[in-house]
Parts: sequence; C-alpha cells; structure tokens
Amino acid sequence: MVPDAEAVAALVDAGLRTVPDFPRPGVQFKDITPLLADAAAFAAVVAALGEVARRVGADAVAGVEARGFMLAAPVAERCGLAFWPVRKAGKLPGPVLRREYALEYGTAAVELRGDLVRPGQRVLVLDDVLATGGTARAACELVEEAGAQVAAVAVLLELAELGGRAQLGGRPLVALRTA
Amino acid sequence: MVPDAEAVAALVDAGLRTVPDFPRPGVQFKDITPLLADAAAFAAVVAALGEVARRVGADAVAGVEARGFMLAAPVAERCGLAFWPVRKAGKLPGPVLRREYALEYGTAAVELRGDLVRPGQRVLVLDDVLATGGTARAACELVEEAGAQVAAVAVLLELAELGGRAQLGGRPLVALRTA
Repeated sequence: MVPDAEAVAALVDAGLRTVPDFPRPGVQFKDITPLLADAAAFAAVVAALGEVARRVGADAVAGVEARGFMLAAPVAERCGLAFWPVRKAGKLPGPVLRREYALEYGTAAVELRGDLVRPGQRVLVLDDVLATGGTARAACELVEEAGAQVAAVAVLLELAELGGRAQLGGRPLVALRTA
Repeated sequence: MVPDAEAVAALVDAGLRTVPDFPRPGVQFKDITPLLADAAAFAAVVAALGEVARRVGADAVAGVEARGFMLAAPVAERCGLAFWPVRKAGKLPGPVLRREYALEYGTAAVELRGDLVRPGQRVLVLDDVLATGGTARAACELVEEAGAQVAAVAVLLELAELGGRAQLGGRPLVALRTA
C-alpha cells in the first residue's frame, strides 16, 4: 500500500532531525537516520518513492553518494529496477564519466559508470535532501552524458529557500516534503 | 522466491568484476556495480540476504559505508526491519559511538548512532566483501557497544585467503560466495 502524500510528508517531518552547525558552522544538517531506524516509516517512504518511479516510467534508479544510496537501492529493488550509484570522485574503478560542480568553497565531483547505462533508459535520480542543487544537477548531467534520460529527480525533502529546483533546468522534481 | 545457494553464488560470480590495482597497487578491487545494474540479479541477491536476516531472527540491518548501504538498505526494507548506517568517521552528527581499526597503513574509524539502538536488538551486519575483516569487526563491536547483539555478519563475497573470518571472533558469518 502506498500511503497518501500528507501522511508521507508527516513521516519525513517526524523522522528527520535538524542538526545546527554540522558539518560546519552555518549549515543546518538534515539527519535522516531516525527515519531509517523506524522500520515502518522507512517502508512507507520507500513505497512512496517507488510509486514515483512507477509513475515516471523509470527503468533504473540512480542514488547519489552516500545517503542517496540508502533510499535509491531499496526503491530500485522494490520496483525491480537497476540501481546505479553516483559516487564521489575516485571511488569507482573506470571507465567512469565525471562531472565537477561548484560548492560554497571550491569544487567537488561525482562519477558514474557510463558503460552500465543502456541508451534511452529512463532514470529516477534519488537523494535525501535538495539544498542548493549542485550535486543533483551534476548527477542528472552524468546520467544524460551516459545516454539515458532523467525521468525525474526525487528527494525526501526540498529546502525551497536554497533554490535547488532552479538548478535542475526544468527536469521534473518530486519532493515528499517541501520546507 | 528465494533462489538456491548455488544460483546465488553464480550470480555473485557473474556480477562482480575484479579490478587489479584499484584503488592502489596490489589491491584486487571487487566492483559490485555490474550486479547492482542487473535488476534480476540484484533482486535475487537481496532476496537471499533477506532470507539470512529472517533465519537469524534479525530486528535490524546495519550497513557498512558505502557499498554496504546498497545492500543493507534494501534488505532492511524488504524484511520490514530497521536500517542503521555504520559510517566513516565525521559523517554522522552526534551522539555517535566510534571504533578505530587498523589498516595496512595507519588506522580508520567507523561510527554508529548508538541512541537509535534498543538494547537487545538482533542485528545483521552487512557489507559487500569480507577481506581482512577489520571493518566488519569494528562494525560488530559498535553494534555491541550500543547494546545490541550481532545475529550474523553477511557478505556477498568472502575472500577466504585474507583471513577475515578469524577477525570476527566467532560471530556467525554468511557469505553468498566464498573465493
């Protein structure tokens, strides 16, 4: 059973803990571990994300390192889809595609094994939180560079004031909760 | 349906790619991404690990960062269990328990949110590969320090010649494939 959207948003609210000044001063970190440790809430959230995957016709689910793995892998498994990890630079053996993106200070990069992607596959890109959107955008660009299509980006929580949605260049975004 | 042990071992063999000298010279890296990208093989492996969780009476599944997350989260969700990430040091906001362990050169540390653990919970500790066993042992010690019991350690692949099993101090080990 897929719980309704309001019930899921309430579970996200109840399961996420805001930690001020982590990992550095000024950041309001959203800790998803209480949600993951609550089996019923975890199952409901995965069911809701699985419903998104079905609705957008996804063939594969890409999870963004590392918290995205904890959501994308169960969604892929539940729906019988392929799972691709989008990893931080240097973690995947080659051949990999790489995309750099700007951080508040400096840059970071994510990588994808492009040889695992079949042209035209429709992909749900999953992460826990959409903040400024730089990582999500880089993940989408990797998927597209590999020849697949981004069916949608989905997150547990969109922090709307940080403007991440605008970074997605019109790619569909589904957030179980917007704050 | 849970596939039989020989079929699962064959899927692990077919889905893992050995990459010589990654991430540094002398290491034979076991890349699980081909398995994860094969939806049927991924589902079969998660089903087999879920059967292990049921057999040992697990209440929770702990996944070891980062590849362990990709297996532990779907196994927990499939079986209706709690999921706990065992993370590299500095990734989890407090309060955390920490365990250091020796590497070939220097040390590393893993952390667990001990406050999410209820005393007496039975935990399946999951990772992709058991090599020298240092990380798996540290994860088990964290789980026990938090007041839970290690019901078993499970991995896709045990590299028997590296002696990791002996590091587990008699805790049960289930490997879908031993090489």
